[in-house]
Amino acid sequence: MENFNFSMPTRIVFGRESEQQVGPETARVARKVLLHYGSGSIRRNGLYDKVVASLASSGVSFVELGGVQPNPRLSLVNEGIRICRENKITAILAVGGGSVIDSAKAIAVGVPYAGDVWDFYTGAAQPVETLPVGVVLTIPAAGSEASKSSVITNEEGSYKLALDIDLIKPVFAVMNPEYTFTLPPYQTACGAADIMAHIMERYFTNVRNVELTDRLCEATLKTIIRNVPIALNEPKNYDARAEIMWASTVAHNDLLSTGRTGDWASHRIEHELSALYDVAHGAGLAVVFPAWMKFTYKHDLNRFVQFAVRVWDVDQDFAHPELTALEGIGRLEKFWSGIGLPVTLKQLKVPTDRIDEMAGRAVEQGSIGAFVTIRKPEVAGILRLAS
Amino acid sequence: MENFNFSMPTRIVFGRESEQQVGPETARVARKVLLHYGSGSIRRNGLYDKVVASLASSGVSFVELGGVQPNPRLSLVNEGIRICRENKITAILAVGGGSVIDSAKAIAVGVPYAGDVWDFYTGAAQPVETLPVGVVLTIPAAGSEASKSSVITNEEGSYKLALDIDLIKPVFAVMNPEYTFTLPPYQTACGAADIMAHIMERYFTNVRNVELTDRLCEATLKTIIRNVPIALNEPKNYDARAEIMWASTVAHNDLLSTGRTGDWASHRIEHELSALYDVAHGAGLAVVFPAWMKFTYKHDLNRFVQFAVRVWDVDQDFAHPELTALEGIGRLEKFWSGIGLPVTLKQLKVPTDRIDEMAGRAVEQGSIGAFVTIRKPEVAGILRLAS
Repeated sequence: MENFNFSMPTRIVFGRESEQQVGPETARVARKVLLHYGSGSIRRNGLYDKVVASLASSGVSFVELGGVQPNPRLSLVNEGIRICRENKITAILAVGGGSVIDSAKAIAVGVPYAGDVWDFYTGAAQPVETLPVGVVLTIPAAGSEASKSSVITNEEGSYKLALDIDLIKPVFAVMNPEYTFTLPPYQTACGAADIMAHIMERYFTNVRNVELTDRLCEATLKTIIRNVPIALNEPKNYDARAEIMWASTVAHNDLLSTGRTGDWASHRIEHELSALYDVAHGAGLAVVFPAWMKFTYKHDLNRFVQFAVRVWDVDQDFAHPELTALEGIGRLEKFWSGIGLPVTLKQLKVPTDRIDEMAGRAVEQGSIGAFVTIRKPEVAGILRLAS
Repeated sequence: MENFNFSMPTRIVFGRESEQQVGPETARVARKVLLHYGSGSIRRNGLYDKVVASLASSGVSFVELGGVQPNPRLSLVNEGIRICRENKITAILAVGGGSVIDSAKAIAVGVPYAGDVWDFYTGAAQPVETLPVGVVLTIPAAGSEASKSSVITNEEGSYKLALDIDLIKPVFAVMNPEYTFTLPPYQTACGAADIMAHIMERYFTNVRNVELTDRLCEATLKTIIRNVPIALNEPKNYDARAEIMWASTVAHNDLLSTGRTGDWASHRIEHELSALYDVAHGAGLAVVFPAWMKFTYKHDLNRFVQFAVRVWDVDQDFAHPELTALEGIGRLEKFWSGIGLPVTLKQLKVPTDRIDEMAGRAVEQGSIGAFVTIRKPEVAGILRLAS
């Protein structure tokens, strides 16, 4: 086990009617906030009105900025920064999914920074202060509600880059599973792939003797695998939605990273897919991850056997561990296909003619991956395996 | 799943040489602290010197108060409060196990309170402020390093009562598994029983659809079950000690409580055992818990079957679920016996003549338990089953 630091400062307020706590939670950190959201679905399902009422009853005023898109854009982040400065806003309230939260985190570190906020994403600078970010979560997927990550797309050049720093963990996250009842099936499935990928990026490690976190990873994966089909069959099943929602946070708040180093090459490769083709992040991961597994499983066959047996209940073929390992990967593909996700570039409707370009961009800042370190040829090979 | 609030503000600094972070972590919250510890074993193993050197290099001064005993005493808490007030101390640094940390938490809430700190334990008053508490953990067991609990024994009348409130969660916990290499085998085993009991108190719930936390509980229990025998055979096995140490925190930081209501009757009953006979808390739990299980398993046979199959890998007898459930309880008893713990009052050298007295005291503040609510006759019945 490796040394680690861990805390989870984000205060989770989870359950039915939890949106009524938005006002009191926000009032702890600010009197005037930027209300940041996406396409306006929160107006249709009534959440917007409830949030506004709760803020008002706690004496919190707000300026609003909607329009966050999937793969959130730097241009909107810069607009948010400008609005916050002009209005002397001291906190951001993100109402939505990972894209809205990631955008809010970018605005929050951008406001007190004299330079270009994109510096934090290219690595040219490190943020040292931030406005507090509060969250009302509506899509369980990215885990951004309690994570140290923000991923932003710079339209100029189609760059999609991540900032990872403890400083940007939200101060609170209000999570009512009822607001996920109306998620379209494809979005529910994409969320599941993202959650599972967050766990698997951590699961495939070269660090030995990480038994507790192995088992916690397996526990969280099994919970997703059992509950996502239930939620797709019964969209208003509160308990299935609640399991998925809480699992999405546990998957990415770094508890499952304690004492180990994850891989993250699949995420990096997927970012190039969605930067060029604007595909849903979860769908891209469902295409990249099985290919990555087929490319890397021989590096640590025992770990893939463990994955097959413990996560997928594969009946172990003790004489042929490779068959067991491949059966585990096959079960993952079948599961994702079964919930309506693509598992090939073709199904994702992404052509293969820019594979080398994507591979080049994925390794622009250096080789990627930690379980298996890869460069441009290997990334291209993985994308070809995914074709 | 029930609604819940959750955060884990305690900053965990885990691993080899982590004790070198004590000074910097302490300096974040105070310049003058009470250095609180137990019997002096930290002087023998060199930890005391390292902590003092780290505090000095960070410019933190201290006044010290050692002598915390297992089942920490109210009289020492009051002495600590007096010392802090006289010396204008603004934080407590607990170096030791759960008893030292619990004592430190009591001092920390007592200093700013005008009344008697015992009020907080009887429920006569609620603390509203506290000095910050930092921890250097040396015994993985109580989970107090990141929990909201403090249990104190009032020698006048042998009362042992708990304070449970988020306010008293430590601000940081430094955890180096190497300092657990020299724990005596019996203390390692008692710690294991305490950790397992913290999980099982949460596991046995009447709340339905708590799959993620069920699986996280099972993951943590299995980790303890596999690693404690390794640590007993090889006391200097870093990885086994690290698994146990991190599991002890996860077991009791309330992650495993999210969305569910635990039982806690076994803990309450054990408190009476150790209040009257001053037995080790873990040893008392090893006696009480199996008896509690035999008393309650018919209340939810399926849950006990799940416990047997998933935690103990019992080969399920589908035709006779009761046999499977009992086999699970039997495996727990065998495991505890195998690591040198008592599982009966007789083995614990506790006579049976004061069972009714203990039962009466356990329910003095009302009926106990939530999985099965019990009163004096049932508590006495459980203690007789344990005889």
